[in-house]
Amino acid sequence: MILIGERINGMFRDIREAIEKRDPDAVVRRAELQARAGAHYLDVSTGPAAAAEEQPAIMEWLVRTAQEATGLPCCLDTVNAEAVEAGLRVHQGKAIINSTSADQARMDLVFPLAVRYGAAVIGLAMNEQGVPKDADDRLALAMELVANGDVHGLAMEDLFVDPLILPVNVAQEHAVEVLETIRQVKLLASPPPRTVVGLSNVSQRTPERPLLNRTYLVMAMAAGLDAAILDVEDQALLEAAAAANVLLNREVYCDSFVKTFRKR
Amino acid sequence: MILIGERINGMFRDIREAIEKRDPDAVVRRAELQARAGAHYLDVSTGPAAAAEEQPAIMEWLVRTAQEATGLPCCLDTVNAEAVEAGLRVHQGKAIINSTSADQARMDLVFPLAVRYGAAVIGLAMNEQGVPKDADDRLALAMELVANGDVHGLAMEDLFVDPLILPVNVAQEHAVEVLETIRQVKLLASPPPRTVVGLSNVSQRTPERPLLNRTYLVMAMAAGLDAAILDVEDQALLEAAAAANVLLNREVYCDSFVKTFRKR
Repeated sequence: MILIGERINGMFRDIREAIEKRDPDAVVRRAELQARAGAHYLDVSTGPAAAAEEQPAIMEWLVRTAQEATGLPCCLDTVNAEAVEAGLRVHQGKAIINSTSADQARMDLVFPLAVRYGAAVIGLAMNEQGVPKDADDRLALAMELVANGDVHGLAMEDLFVDPLILPVNVAQEHAVEVLETIRQVKLLASPPPRTVVGLSNVSQRTPERPLLNRTYLVMAMAAGLDAAILDVEDQALLEAAAAANVLLNREVYCDSFVKTFRKR
Repeated sequence: MILIGERINGMFRDIREAIEKRDPDAVVRRAELQARAGAHYLDVSTGPAAAAEEQPAIMEWLVRTAQEATGLPCCLDTVNAEAVEAGLRVHQGKAIINSTSADQARMDLVFPLAVRYGAAVIGLAMNEQGVPKDADDRLALAMELVANGDVHGLAMEDLFVDPLILPVNVAQEHAVEVLETIRQVKLLASPPPRTVVGLSNVSQRTPERPLLNRTYLVMAMAAGLDAAILDVEDQALLEAAAAANVLLNREVYCDSFVKTFRKR
């Protein structure tokens, strides 16, 4: 399981204020906390408030700040292609671009960028018509991502298909379709693409967020999930992931499996 | 999800002592606690200490005591066929017999008993050669249970196949095979048999029992599990089951889904 820490995102107040003042403290603090908690990647997002023309400079600053603090690779979370490229230019190691949809124009923009910089890409199972209702339609879009990634020379292990989980309180029927999508994405190509979810989305505006997040993560892991953008500082969430990991026989059991999971 | 409370079992000291003195207090207390916690069935077991010739009388007493306290149906947990029948004779409502293996002699003994008393049966995916290593061999034994149950006139919904989960610390590779078995048992007949696990077994002698139990329950529910014998008094376990239930779209989401799950 690749754990991508969600917390360096301008939609959170501490990071938004840090971005406004270009004050690295909050970014460094969140980067270090997430690294200690076991993150393998740090998602970095300028957030919805930042003006488009400022986004490349903000992304560059976020990437530099987060990487200087931790050395961890980043997941560049923006639809602004210039901001993605600004981040890739200064990024050390293998980045993940978050994300492209299955729209032709977006794929033709993002996949070449990924190949040029040796980055991986999160491909969303959605297009200009929105998020599909069921697993079949999500898989059809996943296949678009696979085919187009392949045309552009992207290695399949560098494509992370995100089936798009929606909040269970308003779109309950999607959760189980996403599990089915995760299972079937592996059949689309050999070697197969990988899968990722933006976990916290499943529990938006519900009163039981940590419970729903960790329960869904476990089910998604059992379905074959490879990576998740999540609240890596949520200790119970990581314990659940550690337990799922040994129960799914992905790591050899030892009595201290929770501790060993965090160290990876 | 059918929740079968595991606690009225002579392997626990309070129940063993209650059985020895025929003192109903501990049995009544555990029955009431489990009923309040949300149990749909109470597993009742004389435990390993009881002498064979005493078991029918003990089983009859346990069933009467548990049912007088709660009105809940029981899951008669013993390999002693006379004890099973003694329990069935006094049982009110639909009992579950726990269990028969896939041995021919056992099936020929237990299935007719179930049909005669209108009880359901837990059928273990094991035979005189022991517990199979993988899902395929478990499914072959499940098919034996299905075929023999059918011959004896047992309704398929009254057969609960138990794929037999083993402790993850000593038989780690079994956990994922059991998940696969749960998924595939549904393909054996139409209408299909149901599935059950003895959940606590997965975490025997590990230092993280509640975490492993609830994580495995969630994965098994996602695989299609119908029932579990479990520690229904473990609040975090029931919360996980409630969350899995809404995430799998089996109950309509409401903000108080944890509370409504317990009331069912």
